[in-house]
Amino acid sequence: MNGAVKTGIGDDCAILRPKSGFELLVTTDLCVENVHFRRAWHPAAAVGHRCLARGLSDIAAMGGEPLACFLSLGLPADLPQAWVNGFLRGLLALAQRYRVQLAGGDVSSAPQITADIVVTGQVPIGTAILRSGASPGDRIYVTGALGGSAGTLKHLLAGNAIKPTKSSPHFYPIPRLEVGDFIRKHRLANAMIDISDGISVDLRHICEESGMSAILVSNKVPIAKNADLELALHGGEDYELLFTVPKRTKVPARIAGVTVTEIGEIGYRQDYSSAIQILGDNGKVTSLPQRGWEHFTGQR
Amino acid sequence: MNGAVKTGIGDDCAILRPKSGFELLVTTDLCVENVHFRRAWHPAAAVGHRCLARGLSDIAAMGGEPLACFLSLGLPADLPQAWVNGFLRGLLALAQRYRVQLAGGDVSSAPQITADIVVTGQVPIGTAILRSGASPGDRIYVTGALGGSAGTLKHLLAGNAIKPTKSSPHFYPIPRLEVGDFIRKHRLANAMIDISDGISVDLRHICEESGMSAILVSNKVPIAKNADLELALHGGEDYELLFTVPKRTKVPARIAGVTVTEIGEIGYRQDYSSAIQILGDNGKVTSLPQRGWEHFTGQR
Repeated sequence: MNGAVKTGIGDDCAILRPKSGFELLVTTDLCVENVHFRRAWHPAAAVGHRCLARGLSDIAAMGGEPLACFLSLGLPADLPQAWVNGFLRGLLALAQRYRVQLAGGDVSSAPQITADIVVTGQVPIGTAILRSGASPGDRIYVTGALGGSAGTLKHLLAGNAIKPTKSSPHFYPIPRLEVGDFIRKHRLANAMIDISDGISVDLRHICEESGMSAILVSNKVPIAKNADLELALHGGEDYELLFTVPKRTKVPARIAGVTVTEIGEIGYRQDYSSAIQILGDNGKVTSLPQRGWEHFTGQR
Repeated sequence: MNGAVKTGIGDDCAILRPKSGFELLVTTDLCVENVHFRRAWHPAAAVGHRCLARGLSDIAAMGGEPLACFLSLGLPADLPQAWVNGFLRGLLALAQRYRVQLAGGDVSSAPQITADIVVTGQVPIGTAILRSGASPGDRIYVTGALGGSAGTLKHLLAGNAIKPTKSSPHFYPIPRLEVGDFIRKHRLANAMIDISDGISVDLRHICEESGMSAILVSNKVPIAKNADLELALHGGEDYELLFTVPKRTKVPARIAGVTVTEIGEIGYRQDYSSAIQILGDNGKVTSLPQRGWEHFTGQR
């Protein structure tokens, strides 16, 4: 694969050798049946894809290159082997696409399907893009269109049947690794995060870690076809990137084939309650409440 | 802690910087309620300790130095906060003892307590002790006494009340990190593994990865006070180290305060079925069946 895995599955530990002059990224994401997915809605391959995509998206949000993943699986005793095969097929197809080696893991029985994914990556020392670097005057950008995953989820929750196509960002989200890599290489951004819980939650992370505030312009937010502004602002699992760019830096309209849109600006921190404000179509500025996609689903 | 964690909890990924000239070790262990522990038997602090000890023991088995750990926790909605606090107290006490930083993780709801622990470590490039290095004529050594953890489990399964003392290898196993480090530094061993599933399983891993066979001498196997030969050979969760040493290499009777005992010898591989043989007190050599601790518990 990428040559970083010196010893994979079959010893007490995997051995990774990041390139000289690089540091290592580690992210871990837990997926639990009936919390993060439902067997009735999500094909096994989509569940495997989504699990790994969450971790890869975290690597993308640092501007990193993924190296290896580790999978801990808890499986009910009566789970059909075909489900496990489908899950692994979906996960490994995505892994292969980004040259990520499955280098270890663990298996146990469990009352519900539980998959914990660890993804490791590398980045040249000191170049990872943190959440904490946003500065006053930075423009806020997002990739792609937002709310699409939550839009699908809303339909599923309403009892509608939805065909899980490969092009659906809900079933097969695409981690923005090429975009993150471009942004790091060109030193475009002061801060970056992936949108896993919705802008209202994830931009708040940027503001909190940077000690800043933000203002969004509602009619600039790119909204997915099956979504609305509410879903675009608060819906999660889009796995697009949100990043902040110094005022005078020129940002391409597309990066690695993905549309990039300016949606607002970073400001000095006034007080905690008004960390994020939004300028509405009516010309009024209001405080943007913190609502993740739990809001729509009752899930966490 | 140990200075390797450049960015811990609070960003998309943790950033680790292993020392220059070192490679990274990664191990992952999944602990599920009623599979790996029972709330009625195991205090929360012991569950937290045991989870991390499993991962640290894997690092020890490579001769590595632990750096950071990552914890994914699935928790039932009705779990008392006191249980979570106790779990973390047990885990973090062991982490502090070995200067391991908790650098990230994830939390979700789950029908049963589920804890996936990832431990990372470092080792000078090319010096990790693998399972695959055993050679004909190597002497087989183990640390400590064996079967103690399974002995306690056997009593618990029989319905006996057992006080979970800090000195109990079942409730609070000690990862043999100092021993593993000594063995690597002095280039004592050709191959090493930790005994998590019992000698009959773990020595078989060494034989399989090395393409070798082994013979054990039954009356040399060090047996814990509350165990017998059967438990010492097949009981798991001892987290002692098993390693193979070239014939003429002198091995200290104690390493880092832990007794080290020669129990057998590595030979050329004859055929798969007789990979491990054992010389009994009666002078007869028999084939050692593969039986892990599942044998005693019906668990996996």
